[in-house]
Amino acid sequence: MEKRARVLIDCKDKKGLVYKISKVFYDRDLNIDNNREFVDKEIGRFFMRTVVSGMFDVDELLQELKLVAPKDAHIRVIIPEDKKIVILATKESHALGDILIRHADGDLGADIECVIANHDTLKNLVERFDIPFFHIPTEGLSREEHETKVMECIDQHKFDYMVLAKYMRILNPSFVKAYPQKIINIHHSFLPAFIGANPYKQAFERGVKIIGATAHFVTDDLDEGPIIAQDVIPVNHRFSWRDMQRAGRDGEKIVLSRALSLVLQDRVFVNGNKTVIF
Amino acid sequence: MEKRARVLIDCKDKKGLVYKISKVFYDRDLNIDNNREFVDKEIGRFFMRTVVSGMFDVDELLQELKLVAPKDAHIRVIIPEDKKIVILATKESHALGDILIRHADGDLGADIECVIANHDTLKNLVERFDIPFFHIPTEGLSREEHETKVMECIDQHKFDYMVLAKYMRILNPSFVKAYPQKIINIHHSFLPAFIGANPYKQAFERGVKIIGATAHFVTDDLDEGPIIAQDVIPVNHRFSWRDMQRAGRDGEKIVLSRALSLVLQDRVFVNGNKTVIF
Amino acid sequence: MEKRARVLIDCKDKKGLVYKISKVFYDRDLNIDNNREFVDKEIGRFFMRTVVSGMFDVDELLQELKLVAPKDAHIRVIIPEDKKIVILATKESHALGDILIRHADGDLGADIECVIANHDTLKNLVERFDIPFFHIPTEGLSREEHETKVMECIDQHKFDYMVLAKYMRILNPSFVKAYPQKIINIHHSFLPAFIGANPYKQAFERGVKIIGATAHFVTDDLDEGPIIAQDVIPVNHRFSWRDMQRAGRDGEKIVLSRALSLVLQDRVFVNGNKTVIF
Amino acid sequence: MEKRARVLIDCKDKKGLVYKISKVFYDRDLNIDNNREFVDKEIGRFFMRTVVSGMFDVDELLQELKLVAPKDAHIRVIIPEDKKIVILATKESHALGDILIRHADGDLGADIECVIANHDTLKNLVERFDIPFFHIPTEGLSREEHETKVMECIDQHKFDYMVLAKYMRILNPSFVKAYPQKIINIHHSFLPAFIGANPYKQAFERGVKIIGATAHFVTDDLDEGPIIAQDVIPVNHRFSWRDMQRAGRDGEKIVLSRALSLVLQDRVFVNGNKTVIF
Repeated sequence: MEKRARVLIDCKDKKGLVYKISKVFYDRDLNIDNNREFVDKEIGRFFMRTVVSGMFDVDELLQELKLVAPKDAHIRVIIPEDKKIVILATKESHALGDILIRHADGDLGADIECVIANHDTLKNLVERFDIPFFHIPTEGLSREEHETKVMECIDQHKFDYMVLAKYMRILNPSFVKAYPQKIINIHHSFLPAFIGANPYKQAFERGVKIIGATAHFVTDDLDEGPIIAQDVIPVNHRFSWRDMQRAGRDGEKIVLSRALSLVLQDRVFVNGNKTVIF
Repeated sequence: MEKRARVLIDCKDKKGLVYKISKVFYDRDLNIDNNREFVDKEIGRFFMRTVVSGMFDVDELLQELKLVAPKDAHIRVIIPEDKKIVILATKESHALGDILIRHADGDLGADIECVIANHDTLKNLVERFDIPFFHIPTEGLSREEHETKVMECIDQHKFDYMVLAKYMRILNPSFVKAYPQKIINIHHSFLPAFIGANPYKQAFERGVKIIGATAHFVTDDLDEGPIIAQDVIPVNHRFSWRDMQRAGRDGEKIVLSRALSLVLQDRVFVNGNKTVIF
Repeated sequence: MEKRARVLIDCKDKKGLVYKISKVFYDRDLNIDNNREFVDKEIGRFFMRTVVSGMFDVDELLQELKLVAPKDAHIRVIIPEDKKIVILATKESHALGDILIRHADGDLGADIECVIANHDTLKNLVERFDIPFFHIPTEGLSREEHETKVMECIDQHKFDYMVLAKYMRILNPSFVKAYPQKIINIHHSFLPAFIGANPYKQAFERGVKIIGATAHFVTDDLDEGPIIAQDVIPVNHRFSWRDMQRAGRDGEKIVLSRALSLVLQDRVFVNGNKTVIF
Repeated sequence: MEKRARVLIDCKDKKGLVYKISKVFYDRDLNIDNNREFVDKEIGRFFMRTVVSGMFDVDELLQELKLVAPKDAHIRVIIPEDKKIVILATKESHALGDILIRHADGDLGADIECVIANHDTLKNLVERFDIPFFHIPTEGLSREEHETKVMECIDQHKFDYMVLAKYMRILNPSFVKAYPQKIINIHHSFLPAFIGANPYKQAFERGVKIIGATAHFVTDDLDEGPIIAQDVIPVNHRFSWRDMQRAGRDGEKIVLSRALSLVLQDRVFVNGNKTVIF
C-alpha cells in the first residue's frame, strides 16, 4: 500500500551523501515530495529531512539508509500520525488554553494525554475538554519528592513530548535527564535577555521598547536549552510591568504553539545547543 | 465615594478646549490619571480621552462638560465595568476559542451573553464554557428571514458589542444599520488587499510574501468599515493556500482579541471611516 | 583549479531528479556546499539551487546536467562574481542612496554601470560616488520617444539587472518586453493593496494601521509582476499621509536592497507570476 | 509674528498641572497644535510635550510656565530649527552612510558639523558629502590621551547631539560625563541580550532565531543607558555570524536614524534609566 514517511538523517558531513541517500529512494521507486538539507560547516554536520511516498517497508528502508550513511548517523523513518503529549502547567491559562482549543479543533497534530499541575486552578478548564487533570501539590514536599510524584504520574502515559505551558517550577537535572530532547518550555522573555525570575519586571525596569517570548528544549542549564522559536511584541513607556505581562501572553502562547507544531511535524533537529529547523 | 471614570469627548476643534475641560476637572478636585488628545487637522476635529478619579456624580460631571464643550460635542462619562458582548460565528473555532479562553481567565473585560451560529459545529465547544449557544440554521430561509431570526435572538440580550468571530455570512445593510459602531469583524486579509471571498486563495495566487488580518467596525460597505487593528505574518513559496490559512489563524485571533480589548477599554473613537485609538 | 558554482535548475517535476542531478555532482567528485529544492505541486514544477565546489569546466558540467534533466529544463551554471546593474531614478534619493552606500562599501555584490533619471535632482549625489549620471528629461517628448532615448542610453551598457529606484514613470509594454525578468521595481505599498498613484495617500484615506513596500519584477501588468520581497511599518491616526510617506521610505529602501541582494545571489526563480526564493 | 514652539515640561506630578499649564496657553491666546502627557505613577513624575502656535515671546512664556509649575520642573520652550550633530565612527559605513544620505536629502533635521573617526577608512565617503572629516588615530596613545584629542576636536564645534555611528571604542566615564544626555549610541544587539563584544557572534553561538539593534543614550554603565528605539530581524540556522552581522546592519542603521529623528524632534524625555517618547 502507498505510504508516506518523513526521513530524518543527521550525521558527520561527507561527500556524496545527497547522492547516496537519493539513490536509495530512487532504487525503491519512491517519490520525493519534499526535501531539505543543511550542512553546519563549522562542525561538519549534515542534516536532511525528506518526505517520501510510495511502496516501502519502514524497517527495510531504515536498514538500507544505514548502509549508505556514516556510522554515527542518526536516522529516523517516521510515518506521520498523531503524536502524544503531556502538559505541565501551574495557574496561568493562556498557553494551555491555546493548546486545548487547537486540540478541540483537530488542529494540534497531537493527542493530549493529560495535564499535570502544581495548583488546581486549571482543573475546571482542562476537564471542560474531557482531558485528565492531575493536581500534584507541592505542600510539604521537597523539590525531589514533588518531582518524583510528577514522574510517577507522567510515566503512566506514553508521550512524544512534554510541554511546559507556563509551569512555574524549576526542574532538577535528574528530571530533565530522564526526558532528553522531549521537554519544551515557553520562557516569557526574548532569551537570552532576562534569564530567571519575573522577566517582565526586569524588562520594565530596563526600559526596553520590545518584549519577547522564547520556546526552547529544556536542558540542565536553566533557560539555556536549544531555541526553537521566538517572537517579539512592541511596548512603550505607558506599559507597567503588568501591562507587559498581559501583552506578552499573546506572544507566549503563539510562540509555544508554533514550536510545538514544528516538533510534532518532525521539522526540528537539535544541533548541540542550537536547532536546525526545516 | 472615590470613583474612577473614563471621559471621552469628540467635537469640532476650538481653541481652549484642553483648558476648559481640564478646568472642569480641576474645579471638582479630580485627579487626571491619564490623558490623551488628538486633533484631526484635516477636518478640524478634536478627540480627548481622560481617566479621572475622585468624588463626583456621573450626570453632574457630564452636564458641566456639556457647558464648556461645543454644541456638537459627543461626550461620554463611563464608569469602567465589565461590558457585555454577543458573538456570531460559523464553524471555525480559533477566533471564538481565543475569546472563550480569555473569558474563562477573567482576562476579557466583558461577559459573553451568548454565541449564535449558522452551524452547530461549535455548540460543544461553547457549552463546555457554560455559555448559551444558539444554532440558527439558514436552510430554507432567505437572507432576510435568517437575519430576522438572528436579530430576534440577539435582541433578547443586552450587549455593548457584537463580535463576528469568523461569521462567514454577508450582512444586509438593514442589519448593520440596526447596530451602528457596535459590530466588530475580523477579516482574514490585510485590508484593503484581497477584499471578498477566500482572501488566502487570492494571496496565494498573487504570490505575496506577507499575509495579514484586519479587525474593523462593520458598515454598509463590505470590508470597508473603520479599521481598528491589523497584523501580518510572513509566508513564502512553500505555503499552499491551506498553509496560509492555517498560519493566518493565529494572526486573526490575536488581531480580533486586540481590537476587542481596545473597544472594551473605550480607547477607540470612530472618525469617519477611520479610527482614533488612544 | 578549485572553483565554486551556483547551479540553478527548473523544469517539469519528474521522479528521480534529485538522484540524477546529485549523481552528476558525485561522479565529478564535486562537493555540495548548499542545496535547496522545491516542487510546486500545483503545476508540477521542480526548482533546485545547488552550490558546488571542486574541479570542473562550466560548459561540460552544463552539458552533463542537460543529459539527465527533462528537455524543458532551464539550467544555469553560474560562477559567482560581481554582477552589473543600471539604475533608473527620478527625484527621491533614499532608495538610490541606500544602494550607493552599499556599493561604496563593497557590500552590494554588483557594479553600478550608471544612473539614468528624468530629472537632474540626483546628479550631484550620484557624481559624488564617481558613477556616471545621465539626465534624460521628458520635456517635449512622447512617452515612446523618451523611452527610446532611455533604451539607447541603457543599451550602451552591459548589465544583469535594471533597478527602478523610485522611477516615477510608467513603462510601456514594449520597453518591459525588451528586458524580461531583468527589471526590479520598488512599489511604495503592500501590494496588491493601493495599486496605482500615491499609495500613501490612499493608505491614509483608508485609515490603515500598517503600511508596506513591495519589490517585484516588472511585467506588462503594472504593479502585477512577481513579488520578491515585502515588508511593513506600523502607523497610527497621528500620521498624515506625508508622515506615512516619510516613514515608508525606510521600508522601501530596505525591501529594495533585500530584493536586489537576493537576485544578485541568484536565489530567485520566477515561477509564473510568483517567485521561488532559496 | 506668528511662531510655533515645542514646550517640554517634566516635574513631580501634582493635581491640576494640565489645567494650570493649558491656562497659560489659553490666557496668551495660543493654539495647542499637539499635546501629549504621561505620568509615571511609580515615581510620581509628570511629562508633557505641547506644540503651541501664536504670538509669544519665548522667555516670557518660559517665565509664566515656571510660575505655575513645581519648583523642580524642567521646562523647555524650543523653536524648531535644524539642530547640529557631530558623529563619531570607526570603519563601518552603513550607519554613517544612512545619516549622510538623509542629510544630503534635507531629511535629517540636523546639520552635520563633522565626522571624527579613529581610522581613516571613511574619509573618502564623508568628504564626498563636503563634510569635515577628522582622523584621530589611537596609535601610541592611551585611552585617556586619545579621548582628550577627540574632545579637543569636538569642542571646536557647537552641537546638540553626538552620534556614535558604530564607534567601536569604549568611552571613559569622564568623557561621558562631559556630554550628559547628548551621546546617542547604536548597539548591535537587542539589549540587554549580548552586552559586550561581538554580539553577533554571541547570538550565533546561542542559536537565537531573532537578532536586534538598540539605540540608547550613553551613560557611565556600558550598554546600560536609557533605550530610545529597538528593532529586530529574523534569522535561522543557515546564518553564520557573518550573515547575522550583514543582516543586522539594516536594523542598526534604521534604528539609529529613527532614534536620532526622535531626539531631534524633541520627542524624548530621559526618565532615570528609561525614556518617555511622545
